[in-house]
Amino acid sequence: MLSDEVEVDGERLWSRLMSMAGIGATANGGCNRQALTDADMAGRRLLTRWAGEVGCQVRVDAIGNLFVRRAGREEASPVVMTGSHLDTQPTGGKFDGVFGVLAGLEVLETLQDAGIATRHPIEVAVWCNEEGCRFPMAMMGSAVWAGTLPLDTALALADRAGVTVREELRRFGVPTQLPMTRQPVKAALEVHIEQGPVLEQRAKRIGVVTGVQHMSRHEIIVEGQEAHAGPTPMKLRRDPIRVLAEVLPALYGAARERGEEARLTVGIIETSPGSPNTVPGRLRFTVDLRHPEEHEYSALRIEAERVVRSALQRHGLGGQIRCVWEAPGVTFDAACVAAVREATAALGLDALDMVSGAGHDSCNVAAVVPTAMIFVPCAGGLSHNEAESAAPADLEAGANVLLRTLLSLAVRVA
Amino acid sequence: MLSDEVEVDGERLWSRLMSMAGIGATANGGCNRQALTDADMAGRRLLTRWAGEVGCQVRVDAIGNLFVRRAGREEASPVVMTGSHLDTQPTGGKFDGVFGVLAGLEVLETLQDAGIATRHPIEVAVWCNEEGCRFPMAMMGSAVWAGTLPLDTALALADRAGVTVREELRRFGVPTQLPMTRQPVKAALEVHIEQGPVLEQRAKRIGVVTGVQHMSRHEIIVEGQEAHAGPTPMKLRRDPIRVLAEVLPALYGAARERGEEARLTVGIIETSPGSPNTVPGRLRFTVDLRHPEEHEYSALRIEAERVVRSALQRHGLGGQIRCVWEAPGVTFDAACVAAVREATAALGLDALDMVSGAGHDSCNVAAVVPTAMIFVPCAGGLSHNEAESAAPADLEAGANVLLRTLLSLAVRVA
Repeated sequence: MLSDEVEVDGERLWSRLMSMAGIGATANGGCNRQALTDADMAGRRLLTRWAGEVGCQVRVDAIGNLFVRRAGREEASPVVMTGSHLDTQPTGGKFDGVFGVLAGLEVLETLQDAGIATRHPIEVAVWCNEEGCRFPMAMMGSAVWAGTLPLDTALALADRAGVTVREELRRFGVPTQLPMTRQPVKAALEVHIEQGPVLEQRAKRIGVVTGVQHMSRHEIIVEGQEAHAGPTPMKLRRDPIRVLAEVLPALYGAARERGEEARLTVGIIETSPGSPNTVPGRLRFTVDLRHPEEHEYSALRIEAERVVRSALQRHGLGGQIRCVWEAPGVTFDAACVAAVREATAALGLDALDMVSGAGHDSCNVAAVVPTAMIFVPCAGGLSHNEAESAAPADLEAGANVLLRTLLSLAVRVA
Repeated sequence: MLSDEVEVDGERLWSRLMSMAGIGATANGGCNRQALTDADMAGRRLLTRWAGEVGCQVRVDAIGNLFVRRAGREEASPVVMTGSHLDTQPTGGKFDGVFGVLAGLEVLETLQDAGIATRHPIEVAVWCNEEGCRFPMAMMGSAVWAGTLPLDTALALADRAGVTVREELRRFGVPTQLPMTRQPVKAALEVHIEQGPVLEQRAKRIGVVTGVQHMSRHEIIVEGQEAHAGPTPMKLRRDPIRVLAEVLPALYGAARERGEEARLTVGIIETSPGSPNTVPGRLRFTVDLRHPEEHEYSALRIEAERVVRSALQRHGLGGQIRCVWEAPGVTFDAACVAAVREATAALGLDALDMVSGAGHDSCNVAAVVPTAMIFVPCAGGLSHNEAESAAPADLEAGANVLLRTLLSLAVRVA
């Protein structure tokens, strides 16, 4: 293979990651570069400067996605794309998203330095507002690009202060009035930290991501009746916590029955009024359900809903379980996945096929172009956390897998 | 009996209750007259004015308790006392505490109007800061009076804004520098709404309160580890909600085993960081335990602690169960209880012996003088609630029981 000898510069990649982490750096070693804030924009300007130094052009679309382009021999041929996002959670880390963008840039610079030409142009995408924490729509920019979210809907999203995406984009000179266009794409790849502990636990350096789990988020409300903790006999109470006492073990049991791949998370439990000596008048909790297999996922969701409804009925309490968000699973393109697997094997890296438990921009991209993802380990599986950490050698390995895969898809010609 | 013909004026009592409810009235028909606020002081001034109109003297002690005194034939003999409190919860009702104070005043005025003399003086106490919501010590004034809480400790209590009890008392001219004194008391009574649904459910007009439950409040912390809801396999999680799923049914089961008199309340459950797609890193919940029988109460408490500790151990998670407050049960004075029972019988009222599930100033008073309580029904058992409600006929009946009991204890002489 022509590409055998070429490798990314891991130190340069690491150095850029640390430079980017300086923008919006938090006191605890994390990053706060929420979408379309001054910090996010400073990060995008830094990337644009680096892209210019590498000799690449950067353009922006109407929803604020950036595309760093390295020309191909056949400029009219479809693009081979990679990329991720630069925005972070309010107490985010240095790697989530950023690694995928800077690994893409590193690939472009490696090719440039080595004087390697490809038939297809290669573009590194920076998807706007992946995190969805400031503007409440995760993976926003990639969804607009893929055509699954109308541009106007996204532009109208407002943060808690009432500032819209449109206002922020215009503040930074983004031409939001232009129509959205989608360049022809041959294939797309995204390299990302795993955000889970599996690669680390199994001592694997690369995750070959074959798809994304089916997932949904549910809100459960149980209406009880406030009562004084002392004088009210148990049998005269309308205590919503009794429902919780019945539902929680049943939910965990339901997840267990769906096998090791099932995920069930109760992330929020709130009691109201929240007084230690008052039976709560109201209980609210959330359930997040995920499974890579569609029929197992459906069975889990149906069972969770049944468990909640039957407990409400048995206790004679009002309430409901409501699905507030559902994302169907994604199966990545077999040829793209095979290209990742081959690159990994050629590099002699220990790899593991896996299904992503988290959503990524690639879920949107996969709806319109052949797509796959590459994971690298992160310490303790920690992410969306200021302590998020990844080993330089793992990041370098992931970038090299990306380089090889992109070269094979973009077709090295010199 | 000499007192057969004398009865309180139920309409006057009701009218005063409604006048007092106008001070700190909330939009939803409740009261916000938290301890030592301007509203609380306005309520105390109104009571003082009424007491003057009835021809009674009012004095205040160093912790802000008020005593409305009607002289006895033997002024040096011990006082027969009644009373309760005028302060409310932030979203409190019109009757909790206030009824006991105004029923006491109504008794004094009834005696005055009828020209009835008693051997012992009668005093109506207004205990300062019974609710403990603004300054975090429930039944504060009566505890200082009874000698179970040092005056300086009480005076140093601060609200969330850092304002102390001492500062507020001085602002209203209370001589906090004076030593606490406790007048000799022959017996004490308190009439109060039940704050529970039992009298209403059993269609009884009067509760003859024989004591107060043993009670304690516990805080449980479970330390988990934050993890992303998607990528983290269930078996690699340190999920504190698993502990809750095991502990909740076990706690309800433990309460059930202690019989119908047991009370178990989980009033607060909080997850942190509180994100629907993050396994909580920390869980906090409260457990309130009550039982009238000491050995049943102890068994329940021991079992609750065992259940939590064994679940923590089984799941290998850090955390603890900590008793943040415990109040031993109270058995009221047999002679005082008998006096209430006789008065109730003489009035031909349907009565029920019962144990209070809530704490009252009378718990403190009972530590130093013979004490009993009288309950009247409240609608739906609702209390600490703006919708708190009681029927005028029930309030009148309770005040009449108080009148008869006080007359028998204070000894009618003319």
